[in-house]
Amino acid sequence: MNNALDVYAESHGFPTECDTTVKQRHGVRFGRSQMPKDTKRYMTVKFPSENKSISVAEGTTLLEACNLADIPIDAVCGGEGKCGRCKMRPRGPYDATPSPQITEAESKEGWVLGCLCRPLGDISVELMPRARIGKHQILTETTAEIPRPLRPWTLKKYVELQPPNVSDNVADLERLIQRLGTKRPCVPLDTLKELSGVLRSGSWKVTATISDLGQSREIIRVEPSDTTTSLLGLAIDIGTTTVVVELLDMLTGKTVATASDYNHQTSRGEDVIARMMYSEEKGVLELKALVTDTINALIFRALKSASTESRRSLDGRDISAVSVAGNSIMTHFFLGLDTRHIRLEPYVPTAYHIPCVSAKEAGLDVEPTASVFTVPSRAGYVGGDVVADVLTSGMHRSSGLMLLIDVGTNGEIVLGGKDWMAACACSAGPAFEGGEVSCGMRAMEGAIDKIRINDDLTTSYHVIGDERPVGICGSGLIDLIAEMYAQGIVDRKARIQALRSDRIQSADAGLGFVVERKSELVKGAANDLVVTDADLQNLLRTKAAIFGACSTLLRKTDERLDDVTGVVIAGGFGSHLDVGRSISIGMLPDVPYEKYRFIGNGSLGGARLTLLSAKRRREVEDIFEKMTYFELSVDATFYEEFSSALFIPHTDLGRFPSAPKDKSGGAKE
Amino acid sequence: MNNALDVYAESHGFPTECDTTVKQRHGVRFGRSQMPKDTKRYMTVKFPSENKSISVAEGTTLLEACNLADIPIDAVCGGEGKCGRCKMRPRGPYDATPSPQITEAESKEGWVLGCLCRPLGDISVELMPRARIGKHQILTETTAEIPRPLRPWTLKKYVELQPPNVSDNVADLERLIQRLGTKRPCVPLDTLKELSGVLRSGSWKVTATISDLGQSREIIRVEPSDTTTSLLGLAIDIGTTTVVVELLDMLTGKTVATASDYNHQTSRGEDVIARMMYSEEKGVLELKALVTDTINALIFRALKSASTESRRSLDGRDISAVSVAGNSIMTHFFLGLDTRHIRLEPYVPTAYHIPCVSAKEAGLDVEPTASVFTVPSRAGYVGGDVVADVLTSGMHRSSGLMLLIDVGTNGEIVLGGKDWMAACACSAGPAFEGGEVSCGMRAMEGAIDKIRINDDLTTSYHVIGDERPVGICGSGLIDLIAEMYAQGIVDRKARIQALRSDRIQSADAGLGFVVERKSELVKGAANDLVVTDADLQNLLRTKAAIFGACSTLLRKTDERLDDVTGVVIAGGFGSHLDVGRSISIGMLPDVPYEKYRFIGNGSLGGARLTLLSAKRRREVEDIFEKMTYFELSVDATFYEEFSSALFIPHTDLGRFPSAPKDKSGGAKE
Repeated sequence: MNNALDVYAESHGFPTECDTTVKQRHGVRFGRSQMPKDTKRYMTVKFPSENKSISVAEGTTLLEACNLADIPIDAVCGGEGKCGRCKMRPRGPYDATPSPQITEAESKEGWVLGCLCRPLGDISVELMPRARIGKHQILTETTAEIPRPLRPWTLKKYVELQPPNVSDNVADLERLIQRLGTKRPCVPLDTLKELSGVLRSGSWKVTATISDLGQSREIIRVEPSDTTTSLLGLAIDIGTTTVVVELLDMLTGKTVATASDYNHQTSRGEDVIARMMYSEEKGVLELKALVTDTINALIFRALKSASTESRRSLDGRDISAVSVAGNSIMTHFFLGLDTRHIRLEPYVPTAYHIPCVSAKEAGLDVEPTASVFTVPSRAGYVGGDVVADVLTSGMHRSSGLMLLIDVGTNGEIVLGGKDWMAACACSAGPAFEGGEVSCGMRAMEGAIDKIRINDDLTTSYHVIGDERPVGICGSGLIDLIAEMYAQGIVDRKARIQALRSDRIQSADAGLGFVVERKSELVKGAANDLVVTDADLQNLLRTKAAIFGACSTLLRKTDERLDDVTGVVIAGGFGSHLDVGRSISIGMLPDVPYEKYRFIGNGSLGGARLTLLSAKRRREVEDIFEKMTYFELSVDATFYEEFSSALFIPHTDLGRFPSAPKDKSGGAKE
Repeated sequence: MNNALDVYAESHGFPTECDTTVKQRHGVRFGRSQMPKDTKRYMTVKFPSENKSISVAEGTTLLEACNLADIPIDAVCGGEGKCGRCKMRPRGPYDATPSPQITEAESKEGWVLGCLCRPLGDISVELMPRARIGKHQILTETTAEIPRPLRPWTLKKYVELQPPNVSDNVADLERLIQRLGTKRPCVPLDTLKELSGVLRSGSWKVTATISDLGQSREIIRVEPSDTTTSLLGLAIDIGTTTVVVELLDMLTGKTVATASDYNHQTSRGEDVIARMMYSEEKGVLELKALVTDTINALIFRALKSASTESRRSLDGRDISAVSVAGNSIMTHFFLGLDTRHIRLEPYVPTAYHIPCVSAKEAGLDVEPTASVFTVPSRAGYVGGDVVADVLTSGMHRSSGLMLLIDVGTNGEIVLGGKDWMAACACSAGPAFEGGEVSCGMRAMEGAIDKIRINDDLTTSYHVIGDERPVGICGSGLIDLIAEMYAQGIVDRKARIQALRSDRIQSADAGLGFVVERKSELVKGAANDLVVTDADLQNLLRTKAAIFGACSTLLRKTDERLDDVTGVVIAGGFGSHLDVGRSISIGMLPDVPYEKYRFIGNGSLGGARLTLLSAKRRREVEDIFEKMTYFELSVDATFYEEFSSALFIPHTDLGRFPSAPKDKSGGAKE
């Protein structure tokens, strides 16, 4: 037992480090002996590098075995055999379907795609280093300040009651309410069921937790003795890729503990589209369970660390309020709502304002009667995370014109200030988050996050965790394009030039630039680290979508870039961003650097602010009301702006006066 | 399949008439093959008269076998071997503990107590006629009128929405709300989960059911097409003995169907004290399940009969509002609340105002999101049924002084009018409902409900259902005492006189009066129908408690009986009551007959009124606020008044000027 998670794992019956038989994780768990009798054969799959083994039924794929064994795999496509991320090397009997994602050389060495390989008997499996999701760098920082006055929607009140006697035998609830002086509050049935016992075990000295989130005042908990010195709340950012929970002391507004992890849904598809398709086929419950599991494990870790810190034993029931921010798809999954109509035109979510639910309904391991507030979305693809970004940035109170850019798997742009706001989303695609780019990966250990290309076309770079490189994350890719353009390796259309250099490779798919040799990469790497023409076109489209969306909003609102007084960059990817490089490739608009501001994880910031402040909760409504949404998917202006931006930095160089020229000093077409 | 209940039984896996193997009824049901493997032997118990047989584990008592087979047994003590009501004659191997409740003659004939007898192999069981609860007479009538204006807390609204398109892709919920024109309503998560599907399957033409019970406005259901011509609600009276449900058309206020049955909890104890003790030992869940089962079976029957009547297929989900009235113990059981502290001094319920719960939480087979309103109690033993009685009677709006008497297993008295009210309860005991009286039974088929004693001490009587007599119900017992007193069979203290007549029997327990010979009774009767001295003392205490409570309230409030402008009799027993006879034995106060008024099932009436009218719901609050509760259990005045009433009709004959004198024309002591 090394850490809290192991304790959690053990207490929840999940595998710990040296577990030998791992049981099915979601839904009903059962060991072999309790399994319903069927005629299927079972076989053991060992993962020596993970110190895990699992027994699976005939027909289970290796990727499914990883899911069951709780080994996070970077399977972008959700197990469709398309992304080539789940490369594994099985030793033992198996049946694998060949895939174009496996090169001939890899095939010879015994590599297969985990999602297309089924063991035929007991087997041992080696994971390709890039397949396994490693230690991560998740953005848990936000610039959101502690709001004043602090006004969470729960409060505690300690009361000492007169015990009843025959001449004063008022009912327990009415006795309590009378003493609290609260006018006819609601009481959830679960709380009422405990009431008589708690009043008596607490010798009629009790603390009541009162929740008042607009619609009705509720006594959500009554506990013995005076606990008014502790009032905990939880802010949750549910990202498509990562989930962050923050445990807050609602009496001081201070963060007590933070915990973060990849969203366990990732194994069912990297991006929201893949996951929505998965849920349409398999039902939404599995995705709901995966994100709830992710959050509950984080709650456990946060409580554990806060308990150690404060030397008090904290319990989930001590958390009496929860605020959640996430994009529409994530909040829909979180509550088990159908996402089918968000995915398909005309992209309609079930609701913008997710009604307040109890933690019990949401399945969270906190006080079951606690209210869960969800920051509303403004559109199917402008979610509560973006509304939360705006709230964190304060742009809705700004008298100057502001531009907010949140680049994640999708890009969302908001333009405006205190009088009006315009918002849109663009399918930026996961290129900067490691998706759809052969050499791409998330910002985690082993990722190149900074890179320079030397004149001899060799490279100098920084790797997160100071390890040997595995791939390149978003900020590294931006650097790479800027450097390749500056060195003349690509032209203005980001096409690789057939230079005479051993760093330029030719393959069926077109030319490629060798970022690093196989020998210098992480042990076990099968190939050189190469960025291809196809990769670059994906990256170019992504940056063009972001810039095109910014330009479109300015045009639609008749505003000029020069009048923008501030640009806010939000989101995990944003925090690693080099503004100069991003402008130089034409992704971010060319305004003076000092106008740029980073707000970190604005989604978490917004969840925190709405948790702590009634004023901020009202402001969320205000943001929702004044924000106009522009649907770009069918917009001619956007198409035009997008096309013009498919150049480095842009067709119209006048829009990027500060951008460096390429080696020839001018435009190459 | 003869009737709706059989259809229900079959569809729910319950035994129908000729079922051969009956499965366990509550909690998880499983047939033999699915039963967890244990080493217990199983044996078959046949009940030929019921056309039922059941397989039970070794050690099960015959009474438990009846419960499992759904054969209602009048086991007053809840299976403690005390009441002697579950007499059965087994044929086959068994092991029975002897009991003083079984006479020597009965024992010779093979009768045993079902609760003390365990089969040792396959066995066939004959039930003593009085053991089986027969066809019942349950009071479903009430004088409550249809309130005007009708203002139930749900309403339906039909809307036709514009389908979304790319330039108008507002979320489903917000699109609906906008069209409904309802300001920011709540939406239960279960409703939201269905929303997207329903809007599309209904081609954007839907009916929304909106619920507004004070605290918050909720859209509880959205269904395809226009269903606004139907709006159903349910009024429920949960009595200790009987349960009545009434299905109401909330658009017209008319009753659509009524269904009633004995409360299935009866097998776990006849009175509330026995049931509370049972729940303290075995947990409250079993009692909750029993009453919920009772109600759900009745809902099914009511819907079935309404469907036949209206030639439409009605479904539980068509019921969008539920109002419940019952005494505190019944409403606590209904919601699974602990009753321990109601039973013990100082008699404190968990709550007077049971918070509004959803039908899902309550476990009712109606629209799961429907609100369930419970009429508040005023004290542990002055429950919502009494508040409902007051509402039905209208006494809270009366300018004259009114007296309300509800005699059930307990007696509750309310005195007052529009300015103030005083209430109290007295443990009348179950004497008039067939409990604690050897010859007593409930008002059902086979019960003598009217009786005259001829001069030769033979009797003339009327039997409910015109059958041969089984026992005597409450109204019959009142007749009997009045007649015995008038004939000089008992003295003023209700002691049987040792007259020379073969109708007077002598036994260890004292004298007894033979009401009818065994030969004239129902086939299979083991003994003559005899009322004993002990029975009469129980009845005397009951009538004294009721009259004593009335007198105490008058004294405490400094009011005079002469100033009472009306006496309201409520409750099932009340409806069979002969006022003249009741006055003559000193149970009811001696005021002119024309001042007496019967309101029938006032509890059901109150549930109905609160279901249909917002004004009546406010009046319930008004009644609660102005009612003062007097605890009589420790009250010296009550003790004095009770003692003075332990005579026929009373110590002070001046208080019963209209009462007939006994045969000697004066007082016998």
